[in-house]
Amino acid sequence: MSSKVPAPIVWKNNVMLLLDQRLLPVEEQMLTISTIEEAHDAIRDMVVRGAPCIGFTAIYGLALWLKSQRSYSPQEFKKAATYLKGARPTAVNLMFEIERVLSAVEKRFTASSTIHDVFNFVVTDGDAQIAASIDNNTKMAATALAALTEKYGERPLTLMTHCNTGFLACGTLGTALGVISYAHARKRVAMVYADETRPYMQGSRLTAYELGKEGIPYNIVVEGAASYVLSHQNVDAIFVGADRIAANGDTANKVGTATLAIVAKHYGIPFYVVAPLSSFDFNMADGSGIEIELRHEDEILSYKNHRVAPPEGRALNPSFDVTPSSLITGIICETGIVTKPNTERMQIFKRAP
Amino acid sequence: MSSKVPAPIVWKNNVMLLLDQRLLPVEEQMLTISTIEEAHDAIRDMVVRGAPCIGFTAIYGLALWLKSQRSYSPQEFKKAATYLKGARPTAVNLMFEIERVLSAVEKRFTASSTIHDVFNFVVTDGDAQIAASIDNNTKMAATALAALTEKYGERPLTLMTHCNTGFLACGTLGTALGVISYAHARKRVAMVYADETRPYMQGSRLTAYELGKEGIPYNIVVEGAASYVLSHQNVDAIFVGADRIAANGDTANKVGTATLAIVAKHYGIPFYVVAPLSSFDFNMADGSGIEIELRHEDEILSYKNHRVAPPEGRALNPSFDVTPSSLITGIICETGIVTKPNTERMQIFKRAP
Repeated sequence: MSSKVPAPIVWKNNVMLLLDQRLLPVEEQMLTISTIEEAHDAIRDMVVRGAPCIGFTAIYGLALWLKSQRSYSPQEFKKAATYLKGARPTAVNLMFEIERVLSAVEKRFTASSTIHDVFNFVVTDGDAQIAASIDNNTKMAATALAALTEKYGERPLTLMTHCNTGFLACGTLGTALGVISYAHARKRVAMVYADETRPYMQGSRLTAYELGKEGIPYNIVVEGAASYVLSHQNVDAIFVGADRIAANGDTANKVGTATLAIVAKHYGIPFYVVAPLSSFDFNMADGSGIEIELRHEDEILSYKNHRVAPPEGRALNPSFDVTPSSLITGIICETGIVTKPNTERMQIFKRAP
Repeated sequence: MSSKVPAPIVWKNNVMLLLDQRLLPVEEQMLTISTIEEAHDAIRDMVVRGAPCIGFTAIYGLALWLKSQRSYSPQEFKKAATYLKGARPTAVNLMFEIERVLSAVEKRFTASSTIHDVFNFVVTDGDAQIAASIDNNTKMAATALAALTEKYGERPLTLMTHCNTGFLACGTLGTALGVISYAHARKRVAMVYADETRPYMQGSRLTAYELGKEGIPYNIVVEGAASYVLSHQNVDAIFVGADRIAANGDTANKVGTATLAIVAKHYGIPFYVVAPLSSFDFNMADGSGIEIELRHEDEILSYKNHRVAPPEGRALNPSFDVTPSSLITGIICETGIVTKPNTERMQIFKRAP
């Protein structure tokens, strides 16, 4: 777990502290969240981002509601949970985490339980989720570094990544960027190339911020430079995260991932996907069924209220793309790695505990 | 020649009018240039851009100097030419055009020639260069459209392009974007996808402006979306320009070109380079000898004085890349097309008049 990047979420003295990620990389400000309403608004207003962090914020948000109550009412608790779900109605992970906590609380407690016991249970659950995430992220990073060592020996490596998949998104080590942090802590990183990640600039704003904080040498590059970078800069491997992985290994991730994977294949550079098992969807046979969200064209046409394109300009803004498993060298999760992923080889993850 | 985009350069009533391209796409302002000093500053300050337009501006700039003289002095004319070359010391085309005019004038005129005759000769040369450029651009566009018709029949096409290679850069129809304008005038364009072209946004600012002016349906896309666009949007062909083409067909062009070519090859989509013979360098065997200019990292780290990356952030900013000829479907110039370009097949351009 990185010590130099401010923790995006901390539970301390019965309140939650959130790093206001909207102000990064210019300003580092921790907000004190002491009510469920403040937690709700922090999720809605993107103070906090990344599926894992949003999930942790929701759990502690429920704890804050319990803290405000004199006694435990299952009906009122359910209402509070429903309210919190509305903070980002499209965030699947938010729904999932709230439902999980609700169900666990309903199983263990009744109207005669003390509010203190329920509160303690929910806080402990939040702490446990973060601890499990740290454990899983560390396992993934160790697996990734072992694969690199097998291929390249112990020398420092030049790595490349896309979007932001580190401490800020995960609240813990992170997935693809977690591999880089983990390798850096073992003096195995010579240079990182970080895609700026248009249109939302997660690379320039967040990945660069994290790499800088940890003292990892890096250069931001534009996505169009992929051919130049991969043919001139001796990149040893590329690591990306995943929003969703189909049963055959096809991977949906931030737009630009598939483009980078195609260029990597062209130059024969290993391309790894790093994601927790919770991102795997074994009910989806392949990536063709994954719907791609088209976001608002203004993300491309303007930058921070500065119009770049003509006033009547139009843009097509797909937010994700699907990288076919044939372009992926290996998929890494907390239970291990599958190289040359396909439906059959991916079965090992399905059978994992 | 497009009628709806304001001409970037016009010689009229013995002065030069330049469209101030720095203000596009927000504002259309024509500047009146009546002295060689104003022409020098317009080139230096990027009022005018694109190798062909810079060349035309230099020729008319020399005419403006001649207009200010009472008599013709070969020595003074040479001094004026040297002064104008200093406007953009790295622009090879600027040097070349000025040397060409200087040499032509020195051959034809002596200290006893009238200033009026020399002035008329230079203005006529400028007009002739523009006329030849229109002619060449039109021939290239016709060749390109014929290649598309052979492949796809007469139906309207979905085309893609990178950077800005149209009327604004060339002062005439243009090269790659010229193909699109030419095809549109013949009702053969259904949709254009224009790369925004990071970091300098030539696509969002200039190509989108030209396409909009001509009423051509388009969408700007980020470079990272190449895989999504080429796999989802039924793109029929891609057209790009060239800064320099080696003897074997390897092509240096704006960064992002080679990345797009690799993705096009992956999806089997035709990828054409359109450039005048003046861009061909038969003394260079292949693209490995082409030096790539690394521009200032601030182009990536900031947008119009708005810092995007952390204050101490670093970027690598290659301005060009080299697309190997093996990824190019065809190279088109004013004398024709070479498909599957290689050193042997490119000989036909070498023997061209």
